[in-house]
Amino acid sequence: MPVTQITLLEGYPPEVRERLVQRVGDAVRSVIAAPEAGTTTYVQHAATYRRDARVFSNGNAAHPVASDVVRGFLQAMEARDLVRAKACLAPGFVMVFPGGACFTALEDLVAWGKGRYQRVGKHFEGFDESWQGDTSVVYVRGTLHGLWPDGTPFGDIRFIDRFEVVQGHLTRQEVWNDLAAHAAAGL
Amino acid sequence: MPVTQITLLEGYPPEVRERLVQRVGDAVRSVIAAPEAGTTTYVQHAATYRRDARVFSNGNAAHPVASDVVRGFLQAMEARDLVRAKACLAPGFVMVFPGGACFTALEDLVAWGKGRYQRVGKHFEGFDESWQGDTSVVYVRGTLHGLWPDGTPFGDIRFIDRFEVVQGHLTRQEVWNDLAAHAAAGL
Amino acid sequence: MPVTQITLLEGYPPEVRERLVQRVGDAVRSVIAAPEAGTTTYVQHAATYRRDARVFSNGNAAHPVASDVVRGFLQAMEARDLVRAKACLAPGFVMVFPGGACFTALEDLVAWGKGRYQRVGKHFEGFDESWQGDTSVVYVRGTLHGLWPDGTPFGDIRFIDRFEVVQGHLTRQEVWNDLAAHAAAGL
Amino acid sequence: MPVTQITLLEGYPPEVRERLVQRVGDAVRSVIAAPEAGTTTYVQHAATYRRDARVFSNGNAAHPVASDVVRGFLQAMEARDLVRAKACLAPGFVMVFPGGACFTALEDLVAWGKGRYQRVGKHFEGFDESWQGDTSVVYVRGTLHGLWPDGTPFGDIRFIDRFEVVQGHLTRQEVWNDLAAHAAAGL
Amino acid sequence: MPVTQITLLEGYPPEVRERLVQRVGDAVRSVIAAPEAGTTTYVQHAATYRRDARVFSNGNAAHPVASDVVRGFLQAMEARDLVRAKACLAPGFVMVFPGGACFTALEDLVAWGKGRYQRVGKHFEGFDESWQGDTSVVYVRGTLHGLWPDGTPFGDIRFIDRFEVVQGHLTRQEVWNDLAAHAAAGL
Amino acid sequence: MPVTQITLLEGYPPEVRERLVQRVGDAVRSVIAAPEAGTTTYVQHAATYRRDARVFSNGNAAHPVASDVVRGFLQAMEARDLVRAKACLAPGFVMVFPGGACFTALEDLVAWGKGRYQRVGKHFEGFDESWQGDTSVVYVRGTLHGLWPDGTPFGDIRFIDRFEVVQGHLTRQEVWNDLAAHAAAGL
Repeated sequence: MPVTQITLLEGYPPEVRERLVQRVGDAVRSVIAAPEAGTTTYVQHAATYRRDARVFSNGNAAHPVASDVVRGFLQAMEARDLVRAKACLAPGFVMVFPGGACFTALEDLVAWGKGRYQRVGKHFEGFDESWQGDTSVVYVRGTLHGLWPDGTPFGDIRFIDRFEVVQGHLTRQEVWNDLAAHAAAGL
Repeated sequence: MPVTQITLLEGYPPEVRERLVQRVGDAVRSVIAAPEAGTTTYVQHAATYRRDARVFSNGNAAHPVASDVVRGFLQAMEARDLVRAKACLAPGFVMVFPGGACFTALEDLVAWGKGRYQRVGKHFEGFDESWQGDTSVVYVRGTLHGLWPDGTPFGDIRFIDRFEVVQGHLTRQEVWNDLAAHAAAGL
Repeated sequence: MPVTQITLLEGYPPEVRERLVQRVGDAVRSVIAAPEAGTTTYVQHAATYRRDARVFSNGNAAHPVASDVVRGFLQAMEARDLVRAKACLAPGFVMVFPGGACFTALEDLVAWGKGRYQRVGKHFEGFDESWQGDTSVVYVRGTLHGLWPDGTPFGDIRFIDRFEVVQGHLTRQEVWNDLAAHAAAGL
Repeated sequence: MPVTQITLLEGYPPEVRERLVQRVGDAVRSVIAAPEAGTTTYVQHAATYRRDARVFSNGNAAHPVASDVVRGFLQAMEARDLVRAKACLAPGFVMVFPGGACFTALEDLVAWGKGRYQRVGKHFEGFDESWQGDTSVVYVRGTLHGLWPDGTPFGDIRFIDRFEVVQGHLTRQEVWNDLAAHAAAGL
Repeated sequence: MPVTQITLLEGYPPEVRERLVQRVGDAVRSVIAAPEAGTTTYVQHAATYRRDARVFSNGNAAHPVASDVVRGFLQAMEARDLVRAKACLAPGFVMVFPGGACFTALEDLVAWGKGRYQRVGKHFEGFDESWQGDTSVVYVRGTLHGLWPDGTPFGDIRFIDRFEVVQGHLTRQEVWNDLAAHAAAGL
Repeated sequence: MPVTQITLLEGYPPEVRERLVQRVGDAVRSVIAAPEAGTTTYVQHAATYRRDARVFSNGNAAHPVASDVVRGFLQAMEARDLVRAKACLAPGFVMVFPGGACFTALEDLVAWGKGRYQRVGKHFEGFDESWQGDTSVVYVRGTLHGLWPDGTPFGDIRFIDRFEVVQGHLTRQEVWNDLAAHAAAGL
């Protein structure tokens, strides 16, 4: 045990059902100290479903993978493709950067960054997702590399970003990194 | 839909079962765009259970809440109660601090900190848990406050810690914060 | 709660499965004071089924909607299409009319009516079904309109009919109405 | 088949669970032409239940049997115990009597009846319940007996009452009977 | 997979439920080439159960283990405790011995054996049960030891008995062994 | 009760699912004294399944019917088609014959038989299967017929064979029969 049975209306693609059993299995094992070998999770289909006095014949949509949304946004930003990056954002999107700088427009962030580095890129080391009802929180961590304002290259500078993703769009980004520590050390 | 049924052996306290349905419901909703009102999750009991040719009469233990383990560790550290803090650690525990400083012994961290601040405390703004099989990743974020080496007070300095928790014990801590940014600005 | 799962062999059309979840949901809510929002009912399919030492590969037939059978009978009677009306009847069909008049043949009813009105029709205001094992009891209520024997028109006279329906055919009809009250008042 | 599983939180008395499986079995068989021998219905208990982002530890209340509420009301009326009868009524209760007479107060009905009979009682021959979401419709049929205004006794006069019951209280009563037919015949 | 859920009314002792999940797991694995590790079987309880228009509140009795009934019979026979042995028999019990000798009374068997050996006992090497609806077939195999009519000892003579067990009582015994082969060889 | 639900991945042919519900129903009834009429067993399909941290999209293979494997082997032996017979054997196959003769090669058995009969055939009266985890034990019983070494015919000689079948191949055969009894009697 535990054996978990998830009943869905038909129509979800295999990828969605596989993501579902993986995540539900992980959620179960975060509470019960069961070995993987003893954790069984499966999807069965309902042919007809009634709730709230209505009969539903189609299931709800599936969310995109929140980490994929975040990766797409960061790649668009790194490529300075603001059109594509903006398509990832929900209304009211807010960014918080080291030192507490806040932005709501990507252009403001770009302008702010200009005084801090000529160019910056990210190596991703890992993504973590935290599932919280309507919101999926995504963490991405890794290292920054790029050029200081004077053209000196830098790299291997630790960073971590925290995103809140609602309905497949970003509502909040928070950033921490060691840029200042390195910049200070570099003086 | 979805309707999720979790079958467990009897014997788990209500708190554990409630945590379980909450987390499984969250995992389900991270994949399927179902409203809360249409997401049903429940625990039923198995009276007898056989897997792998054995009959089990007792369920597995429940894990402690990983965020609670992390909070307890951070509070012990802030109180400089190293005995209690060490009890939270798994063998092989590693810490990584801003600038890339690595420690395996709490005493080394304490010594390293002495050159950076007279005293430091944390206000917690939020915990996020990411459930990943044997490991629960816990993020805690908030602000640092304390005294610089020269006795000047500081506060409202953003931080975030990432912990890996296995079997109720910490195996890894990574720390990011704006201390250097503030220190640099303060010079 | 409650969550109700109905397991059927495959092969029933969607209309039947929808009727099934609607009725089962209603039956559940007639006992448990649960809101509609918290009442979940669904059909799942069995691929193979064994009971009574036999394997069944096809489900049982579905009944027609008993109210529809009753409506069809009443419309045939109003159109004096006795052939179509008789096709709705089971062997042993009995009718009981106001004052206690009993008939087993539609022709006898027609003859009896001739002394009471030149013509009569029904406006249906509502059907109620009561499910009782092999029998579905159907009530239909509304108003009568037509012509008295002397040709005077009448209308808005309350009536209610009770039918017993077994295997899609009528076994019994009982009739109550205000015709006598109006006839008396009209003298 | 069909096999129907009803999942409830614990705490309902056996009478309620038995009523539930009886009614659900009847609802299933009103749609699927399955023999009783092949219709299986059972209640299982959920230990913990979450819906709409809340964890419920107690089930909803059970409704009283609507037919019992109706019987109690009719017995109180026959005994002219208006206090007990009124306790059965919901706000907005309406009565409709033969000829279309409408009342909202029991006293008005009593006054109206005084011109029609000295005394009236009911023999119950059967109750039918029709389960319709928030409302249970109850039919009671049988015969009236009593004394005409002139003291002559009467009996065996067919009647049928239709009640709407919501949350265990009556919201509507409609009455049909053969009193006028008999009164007219008696003149 | 497969995951097998057995729903029972409450009241069976743990030994019965354990036997049940063991046997059902074995039956499943006799058909599906699933490893033990992937074969999950459990019992859940129904709180209330209706079939065939009746509500059952107690489960059926459990059968004794058919192999235990057979072992008890054979031990009673070896001890020549015919009273105890007869208590294991159903009406109509028949025995078939090597060469085709048939008996219905234990006394006849005892008499027949007298010409074949002074004494005989059995070492049990294994029991096999075959579950076939109302009947459980039990095989017991092993070796015979004892004394020939002339007092010479014998041993290690292979035997196998086949029993049919219905409702915990023996209805048929068939015996095969190598006694004749050994007797012939011994001449 | 009992109601048994077996959850499988899709893809098994109807014959396999029917065999499964038959055997599981038999296993249940070997423990619980339930009538056939009250024993319900069905297969439902899982759309997606995860265990041991893997997602499985195909079910395991089905075993051949062990009795069919045995029958095929015995028919091949009777026809002296050793190639076909050998294809039924697993590595390490062992045979034990009356008197305790052991063989591992079919040719040795054939040679041994030559001194005992010119020809032998089997009439099958019944097969019993005993399901025991990885192994299915198959018993076949009936009568032998053939020619003694001197050409005299024989028949109606009781036999029983016990086979162990693993993964559709025979690992062990044990034989008991009345040949010696008849041979002795025939001298």
